[in-house]
Amino acid sequence: VTSARVATAAVLIPIVVAAAWWGGTGAVAALTAVVSLLGLMEFFSLGERVGFHGYRLWTAFCAAGVLFQQWAATGAQSWTISRNLRLTRASAAPELPLELVLLIFVLGAAIIVLFSRRPMNEALGGIGISAAGLLFVVLPLSAVIRLEGVAYIGRRLLLFTLLFVWVGDTLAYFVGRKFGRMRMAPLVSPQKSWEGAAANLLGSMAVGIFLAPWLNLDVRQAVILAGLGNIAGQAGDLLESAYKRSAGVKDSGSLLPGHGGVLDRVDALILAAPVVWYYFQIVLTSRGNAGIP
Amino acid sequence: VTSARVATAAVLIPIVVAAAWWGGTGAVAALTAVVSLLGLMEFFSLGERVGFHGYRLWTAFCAAGVLFQQWAATGAQSWTISRNLRLTRASAAPELPLELVLLIFVLGAAIIVLFSRRPMNEALGGIGISAAGLLFVVLPLSAVIRLEGVAYIGRRLLLFTLLFVWVGDTLAYFVGRKFGRMRMAPLVSPQKSWEGAAANLLGSMAVGIFLAPWLNLDVRQAVILAGLGNIAGQAGDLLESAYKRSAGVKDSGSLLPGHGGVLDRVDALILAAPVVWYYFQIVLTSRGNAGIP
Repeated sequence: VTSARVATAAVLIPIVVAAAWWGGTGAVAALTAVVSLLGLMEFFSLGERVGFHGYRLWTAFCAAGVLFQQWAATGAQSWTISRNLRLTRASAAPELPLELVLLIFVLGAAIIVLFSRRPMNEALGGIGISAAGLLFVVLPLSAVIRLEGVAYIGRRLLLFTLLFVWVGDTLAYFVGRKFGRMRMAPLVSPQKSWEGAAANLLGSMAVGIFLAPWLNLDVRQAVILAGLGNIAGQAGDLLESAYKRSAGVKDSGSLLPGHGGVLDRVDALILAAPVVWYYFQIVLTSRGNAGIP
Repeated sequence: VTSARVATAAVLIPIVVAAAWWGGTGAVAALTAVVSLLGLMEFFSLGERVGFHGYRLWTAFCAAGVLFQQWAATGAQSWTISRNLRLTRASAAPELPLELVLLIFVLGAAIIVLFSRRPMNEALGGIGISAAGLLFVVLPLSAVIRLEGVAYIGRRLLLFTLLFVWVGDTLAYFVGRKFGRMRMAPLVSPQKSWEGAAANLLGSMAVGIFLAPWLNLDVRQAVILAGLGNIAGQAGDLLESAYKRSAGVKDSGSLLPGHGGVLDRVDALILAAPVVWYYFQIVLTSRGNAGIP
């Protein structure tokens, strides 16, 4: 398994890094869309094992709307004129607020509940798993697009996020195997130890220290960014284990040799990416001490 | 039942109308919050009957965030300068984008899944029903606040929406009882007939005809607005019946004598309000032929 795992990583990592570095927002959005939709389908498969039949096609369509909205949002520019006055230049793409996408999702789901031939007693499970797929998989992962779209340092910020997740993960794997004694979450993920989790966090923070100058952040801020992102990422990893436990399976899928499914591979990124994006957006950008190299 | 129903309506309708007409956005937001949270709890009770244990407290907290965000959004002002340039004055309330509220919801739900003592196999059902409660009950109903907040004619637009829903509903009830032959949705709601549904739609459109001058809309637009809102409202009514069917109960609750639960009473409004708000916002406001009396 380890060799398949390494081989898969050796193929995928260069593709992802190349797309993030040279692809621009369009390529990153496309790749994020592919990964989000594969992840969504795996999430629905987990749900089906416990009798929740999600509206796959409709939710995927609305997921595309969410991803489009995030991509369009990166094209908008905004200048703060005074404390609460702001000038916004919309992107060339048509505006599609998240709220409207979610309303369309709800209206379409209502039509499916009422007019499809699905048994009526599946309605609550069907809308539940579909809504959860949008909110717990697609929406957080779509923050990857926003990260890449940050002015000036977007692609660095994205690569930084990928790197601290990967380095933390890898370190946790080896440290956990060698030194793992204290079980962290025996019910959710029996393999995980506190030693591994600590190595995971420290590995990410080390990436923050090393890449702070490259990001034009001061070291303290880069370490906080990587640390918060790492904690969210570890929570994402455990949360995905909880889904699998809930569905009674070991892997979310089998698409990636040695890694399980797509959801298994991006579980940490799903929660790390939005936390990095919001922390950067709210704390760092508003202080005016980041964003311009 | 009919007399209890009439008595309850005779108490509640004046309260709602008075709040909408004299209360201002604050009172409408407060009332919408009370109704949304009661509706959310009834939705969770329906879920519990089929084994989905929602995160009541946490979802209610995030629902309050959604409602606050909608209230804050009504305070913002926006001027279009050129085709894609816009000047925005934020409201005095702190900005809390919907996306951030939803991310906080997801992160908190992850913590509940991982650290509460709930059985792990309930994770998918728990996040599913919680996400659905936010997206299918709270978010659409929160459009009531936006409606009231429309410049100049907000409270008229809100009363118009309430009125066309009530008139359509009432007409459907009597016409359906007297002339109802063709069953519309025997599996979801055996009492509903196509005759009643047609009366429902026509009643709402008649309200559109009568109130068009009061809304400063041309008659055609007011009829379209009432008609689309009515169709969405009838879908909302049926969707709520599907939830109940899914949970195996007749009423969503027993809070309102003669009406069942809160969700039973606002089921049509849940989908009618956001449709009216978006149709008004996108079609009518952008044409510049509405909003100023």
